[in-house]
Amino acid sequence: MKTCWLSVILVVLTSAHAAEQKVTKFARFQLDKTSAYGVVEGEVIHEISGTLFGEWKRTGKTHPLASVKLLPPTRPSKVLAMAGNYRSHHPGQVVNPKFEVPQLFLKPPSCLIAHGAPIVLPKGTTNVHHEGELVVVIGKRARNVPKEKSPGYVFGVTCGNDISARDWQKGDVQWWRAKGSDTFGPCGPFVVSGLNYGDIDLQMRVNGEVRQHQRTSDLIHNVAAIVSFASQHMTLEPGDLIYTGTPGETAQIKPGDICEVEIEGIGVLRNKVTAAP
Amino acid sequence: MKTCWLSVILVVLTSAHAAEQKVTKFARFQLDKTSAYGVVEGEVIHEISGTLFGEWKRTGKTHPLASVKLLPPTRPSKVLAMAGNYRSHHPGQVVNPKFEVPQLFLKPPSCLIAHGAPIVLPKGTTNVHHEGELVVVIGKRARNVPKEKSPGYVFGVTCGNDISARDWQKGDVQWWRAKGSDTFGPCGPFVVSGLNYGDIDLQMRVNGEVRQHQRTSDLIHNVAAIVSFASQHMTLEPGDLIYTGTPGETAQIKPGDICEVEIEGIGVLRNKVTAAP
Repeated sequence: MKTCWLSVILVVLTSAHAAEQKVTKFARFQLDKTSAYGVVEGEVIHEISGTLFGEWKRTGKTHPLASVKLLPPTRPSKVLAMAGNYRSHHPGQVVNPKFEVPQLFLKPPSCLIAHGAPIVLPKGTTNVHHEGELVVVIGKRARNVPKEKSPGYVFGVTCGNDISARDWQKGDVQWWRAKGSDTFGPCGPFVVSGLNYGDIDLQMRVNGEVRQHQRTSDLIHNVAAIVSFASQHMTLEPGDLIYTGTPGETAQIKPGDICEVEIEGIGVLRNKVTAAP
Repeated sequence: MKTCWLSVILVVLTSAHAAEQKVTKFARFQLDKTSAYGVVEGEVIHEISGTLFGEWKRTGKTHPLASVKLLPPTRPSKVLAMAGNYRSHHPGQVVNPKFEVPQLFLKPPSCLIAHGAPIVLPKGTTNVHHEGELVVVIGKRARNVPKEKSPGYVFGVTCGNDISARDWQKGDVQWWRAKGSDTFGPCGPFVVSGLNYGDIDLQMRVNGEVRQHQRTSDLIHNVAAIVSFASQHMTLEPGDLIYTGTPGETAQIKPGDICEVEIEGIGVLRNKVTAAP
């Protein structure tokens, strides 16, 4: 009987812990001249101290969500992104065998912008597209991680827009500026941990009209496979981001357009498009 | 007569300052559990405090150069590299018109290794090449910098080896792992400021045999042009690195090989090649 009660207590404690872990929404935001992280609950940010990827605790300070300036959710040492990772994004839905291996590329951290910041169309390109995507946030240093263990290296997920200048993408030797120009990496608004990111709804809207819509269960290479494969080639660091690829068809964005990436359980990443001054 | 003496003194002072600025060799090295910068004079490192890219001064502490573990010369927020930037590197020395524009690509900071660290040949590639190069170190935040002003944004130069897995470079959609695998970015040993990097001798040796040999005056796009062009697309930060391209023909490297990149006025970057464990 004693054993039985103990089991019940343990189960309750475990569940409570699992629930606490289950879905937590973090925001990085401007605080005076520095930045801070907080846990987002409803319309309030509960500021935290410590390291998001290690030990942290609530400071007791709170801020109305609407009053803070959000920042890109991490300061990554690198940003990776997947090419051609939904069947629906391939012409005629025919996937070239080359994509049986995860096809990654790099975006520079300098291209990242937060929810609310403008996407600036650079001079010299005339065909810039939106690409709504699920973005993975790495939580632990990862090197040669097998697929079955790689979920343990994922801290959480956020929304991303892999802005792409199609003319540069086609004409240049590599995609450095096609995918990496300043403001070409909107991400946020929150990093959410504990979410079942393997099967959630992803929507990309421009001026309120749905342009891309798919579930993350349709990824050709899922998050575990991407993280494992990337880690077999380069050491991933806490805070590193991986854009997981975009579904369906993309289209040109123009000054004045409002881009919104909404992912179930994360929120809406909204950015207005402007022309270079 | 007084004015005359004053002029002489001023000229002498100015010259002394110019000489001090002219050629200074910096090393970044391991110090207990952290890192430090120092000015290298002969076989001695004079430790400095402050910021390499701002104010710094000598601490008075010195270390024998041979006793310290050198680190990659900066901790960049990003690493850019030039493709096809010497005529001698193009097949038949015929330059495709596409290269009239600087053709850049990204390497992740995680690929950087210091002088003395091993180049590890990853599993899954069978054709890894050396690429000896001059590397630019950015000194000031640069955005939209015109060509004539861009030398003011260059802190100095170092040696680099843009290690390249030719099979991945050819077969993958992008060069993320072909050019960005761990240990594929040897650089160092020193950052040298005040050097006339526009016309210096560059040599790549494997096991003592000269494999690439050219002057930097043969760059198709010179340093000023590269920095200006890159800054028109992405914000460059102090410490960011730009590999400027490799001359001539490259060849496969194998476990046991010793790679040396020697650039006039900088020094020798030496790395041994090993197989992945």
